[in-house]
Amino acid sequence: MTASPISRFPVPDIATLADDIRDRIVAIQDKIGFVPNVFLSLAHRPDELRAFMAYHDALMERDSGLTKAEREMIVVATSNANSCQYCVVAHGAILRIRARNPLLADQIAINYRKADISSRQKAMLAFALQVSQDSQSIDDEDFRSLRDHAFSDEDIWDIGAIAALFALSNRMANLTSMRPNDEFYTMGR
Amino acid sequence: MTASPISRFPVPDIATLADDIRDRIVAIQDKIGFVPNVFLSLAHRPDELRAFMAYHDALMERDSGLTKAEREMIVVATSNANSCQYCVVAHGAILRIRARNPLLADQIAINYRKADISSRQKAMLAFALQVSQDSQSIDDEDFRSLRDHAFSDEDIWDIGAIAALFALSNRMANLTSMRPNDEFYTMGR
Amino acid sequence: MTASPISRFPVPDIATLADDIRDRIVAIQDKIGFVPNVFLSLAHRPDELRAFMAYHDALMERDSGLTKAEREMIVVATSNANSCQYCVVAHGAILRIRARNPLLADQIAINYRKADISSRQKAMLAFALQVSQDSQSIDDEDFRSLRDHAFSDEDIWDIGAIAALFALSNRMANLTSMRPNDEFYTMGR
Amino acid sequence: MTASPISRFPVPDIATLADDIRDRIVAIQDKIGFVPNVFLSLAHRPDELRAFMAYHDALMERDSGLTKAEREMIVVATSNANSCQYCVVAHGAILRIRARNPLLADQIAINYRKADISSRQKAMLAFALQVSQDSQSIDDEDFRSLRDHAFSDEDIWDIGAIAALFALSNRMANLTSMRPNDEFYTMGR
Amino acid sequence: MTASPISRFPVPDIATLADDIRDRIVAIQDKIGFVPNVFLSLAHRPDELRAFMAYHDALMERDSGLTKAEREMIVVATSNANSCQYCVVAHGAILRIRARNPLLADQIAINYRKADISSRQKAMLAFALQVSQDSQSIDDEDFRSLRDHAFSDEDIWDIGAIAALFALSNRMANLTSMRPNDEFYTMGR
Amino acid sequence: MTASPISRFPVPDIATLADDIRDRIVAIQDKIGFVPNVFLSLAHRPDELRAFMAYHDALMERDSGLTKAEREMIVVATSNANSCQYCVVAHGAILRIRARNPLLADQIAINYRKADISSRQKAMLAFALQVSQDSQSIDDEDFRSLRDHAFSDEDIWDIGAIAALFALSNRMANLTSMRPNDEFYTMGR
Repeated sequence: MTASPISRFPVPDIATLADDIRDRIVAIQDKIGFVPNVFLSLAHRPDELRAFMAYHDALMERDSGLTKAEREMIVVATSNANSCQYCVVAHGAILRIRARNPLLADQIAINYRKADISSRQKAMLAFALQVSQDSQSIDDEDFRSLRDHAFSDEDIWDIGAIAALFALSNRMANLTSMRPNDEFYTMGR
Repeated sequence: MTASPISRFPVPDIATLADDIRDRIVAIQDKIGFVPNVFLSLAHRPDELRAFMAYHDALMERDSGLTKAEREMIVVATSNANSCQYCVVAHGAILRIRARNPLLADQIAINYRKADISSRQKAMLAFALQVSQDSQSIDDEDFRSLRDHAFSDEDIWDIGAIAALFALSNRMANLTSMRPNDEFYTMGR
Repeated sequence: MTASPISRFPVPDIATLADDIRDRIVAIQDKIGFVPNVFLSLAHRPDELRAFMAYHDALMERDSGLTKAEREMIVVATSNANSCQYCVVAHGAILRIRARNPLLADQIAINYRKADISSRQKAMLAFALQVSQDSQSIDDEDFRSLRDHAFSDEDIWDIGAIAALFALSNRMANLTSMRPNDEFYTMGR
Repeated sequence: MTASPISRFPVPDIATLADDIRDRIVAIQDKIGFVPNVFLSLAHRPDELRAFMAYHDALMERDSGLTKAEREMIVVATSNANSCQYCVVAHGAILRIRARNPLLADQIAINYRKADISSRQKAMLAFALQVSQDSQSIDDEDFRSLRDHAFSDEDIWDIGAIAALFALSNRMANLTSMRPNDEFYTMGR
Repeated sequence: MTASPISRFPVPDIATLADDIRDRIVAIQDKIGFVPNVFLSLAHRPDELRAFMAYHDALMERDSGLTKAEREMIVVATSNANSCQYCVVAHGAILRIRARNPLLADQIAINYRKADISSRQKAMLAFALQVSQDSQSIDDEDFRSLRDHAFSDEDIWDIGAIAALFALSNRMANLTSMRPNDEFYTMGR
Repeated sequence: MTASPISRFPVPDIATLADDIRDRIVAIQDKIGFVPNVFLSLAHRPDELRAFMAYHDALMERDSGLTKAEREMIVVATSNANSCQYCVVAHGAILRIRARNPLLADQIAINYRKADISSRQKAMLAFALQVSQDSQSIDDEDFRSLRDHAFSDEDIWDIGAIAALFALSNRMANLTSMRPNDEFYTMGR
């Protein structure tokens, strides 16, 4: 079997990209040694890529009551529920690194109920999956239950908004058949 | 019954907003006579609102093989599948205006198969709903079928990306319990 | 796009209908100014239409602990869950009129949890949707919970029976591809 | 274990029923030796029972391209999909008798694909289950496919309308927790 | 209609079977008067049949806090949820005999909530169906709830393991289109 | 977070196990350097463990038209559909080794449609998932489609039987909350 391509859609040459996008890509490449395929596949539509990166950074880089590892847990759990190969593999790698734990990403992707995490984190992931899979059913009782686990309302927004952003991201990856870079599979193991 | 609030989260005073956001809101208010609640509720997180507006404009305002009315059809059909009150009501109004048709929005929200649209548009909405509800199952056969209906690959990206963006938007509206403005219910009827 | 026909099946001429059915249809026409398509499409089978009207009146016109507006709420909420275009549009109009509220029908059709109704009415609609979508799971606990909201057993029968009747009605409308009259879309707004 | 009662709701004494209902019940009792519990439990609401009987007879007793056994097949298959104990047991008995086949009712209730019936009858039941479980998806292609199996449009109405009527009936039986008479279990075996 | 065959796959002649398998089959035939088709259809793969029989006996014949009738209840309830004709019909017969109750098997197959069983047995079947249909959601709360109904942890293993074994068995019967023997339909009625 | 235990149930000391089970466990330990937790957790019930091992070997070790790697693909794909942490992690390791491919296991677990496998293997996994998740719908058309991909009927049995066996195995792992050994996560990467 030959490996599948990066995307169902045309993938631009990095040299042809606008400066701001190319600069960001090169900065990442300098840091981790390769260009994650999400940038190459979404760069087919530069304005959408810019908006996605802005949304991503606003949520994933902000000061938050959630640790960065916890935010990646949300991405990994909801992305496997949506069968999104790119997001589970790439953010699984990031989670392993952020959490300094080589097991957590696979545990959470498959079934967070059996992962080596706290009961507060399990409540966080249960809500993230509700937002991801059945957001219409959210009601005040869900908020009360999260507050009982010491999540602030800002934390609840973060949980829900990350699940919502990757609802978008998972669908774009499934639409484009985005291929995870081979490097992600072994990072942080 | 008193009306429910605009959002479960704090809603900022327009006067306190950053200039770029306030300018955009005022421009819309000048045009349609009121401030859509989506701006007020999402302005609680200005950076996320900016990213959302940028993503929205990149898809909904771009030159596309899809008409603006067709793009709103996608929003309306997928938003009812996600039981998103704000998006069905607000974008239903926009669809009525864009399509100059007072019936289409309700028809499509409830069951697009019985709407007064072309079979090509039904194929578009069938794919939009697949992206929205079951994106993991997308395969090459789906692309072939859309090309048979004379959709280009760029059109297919547009269909899928709009369904993906409102997968995010629907979840944010369900998370915040975003209330549609009363004005939307009668616009374009 | 030309408008779709009233029904997939033959639609009788009113002049050819039996006296009792024609009289009822004319009485409605005199009252609201047009003949709802449900009568024309179901009149293809007069005995079934008579039985349906009798069942409808027995439930929707009887003295009940539920107001007439509440009974229409049940119709609207369960009909959107079944993607029944005719019932959501026509009974949405009736609900707007009965409740003297132009917003309620759309709110309830899309997501009753966010509608401007009481928590008792939300409990009523939660049970109606259970009867509509998952009646096998009904147990004594559900009855206790409704009694805690001050519903009598007769009220519970009414909720369940209306949900059951429109389970039939929604399926007949989807089978016949019954078209809502244009007039319904704007009534009571 | 003592046997569960006939209904969650009050069951009237036959002697107290209106003449038309009592006459019908007595006629059935004279014919089969016992009173089916559906009459006793629904007689709590005489007008609804009259409407139900009228609807039932209009569909199940009319001249039709479907045999009476085929109509019972539809009832049995859709009622098990709705986990309706009364309808599967009572109409299973009727199906055994109508079809003069002691095996067919259980075969069809559990999985019609493996029942000793024709491929035309399997197509009939596949459509009945679509009407019962997913009526929103019905489209012209489904009609074409049934016509290819030599079903007339009147036959298709019959299939769909019987599935729709028992969508109502199953929900009423689940609401009332209607108990099948012990006699039905062995009839026709 | 001619009856469907015993299996989609070749069915071996009993005379050709290995001694251990033939001996077991003959012993059953001597006891109940016929050879259950499960032996004939699975004997196409003798080693798999031996493993299945060993697994079956280990669970269904062992000393347990569950009666043999209760173990058959689990088989019947979960097998109808999987639309497994062979298992519902054959184990329904065994349940009728084990429980000395001609009604229980049909009641439980269709909807255990309305069967003439204890609330403890209903809790047992609710858990069996969770294992059968949604085992990923099992958590410590489910164990606590069963212990509250006086099930020991060994009993819980038995409930879960029987549901798990028939998850296998139902799939093999659906794969092979295994036909229940006619004799089962009337045993124990 | 401390790591979760191997099982919700008592885990026997290897020294106390019957000779045949201990011998098998020691042989595996000698080969791979550790004792897979599936043996320790299932050894709580020795007879069931023996039956499981016999069933496993009968299917996974037999001469078959399916390669050993293909058989592991079936295990991995169906086990993630059932959210079975143990089976995805342990058999993912085996698949990496059998296929001499470090990427395949994660690709297939998350979404086989995007894995680096042949279209024949995708057809194999589509059928395995049908057996795993919806075995009632299997019909002759599914067999024809697999034969068109050059699968023999014996191959089809193997695909279906492996999916069926791991339907059991996934449920036992979810019931016992079976913990994958840490070693599996990095084997074959």
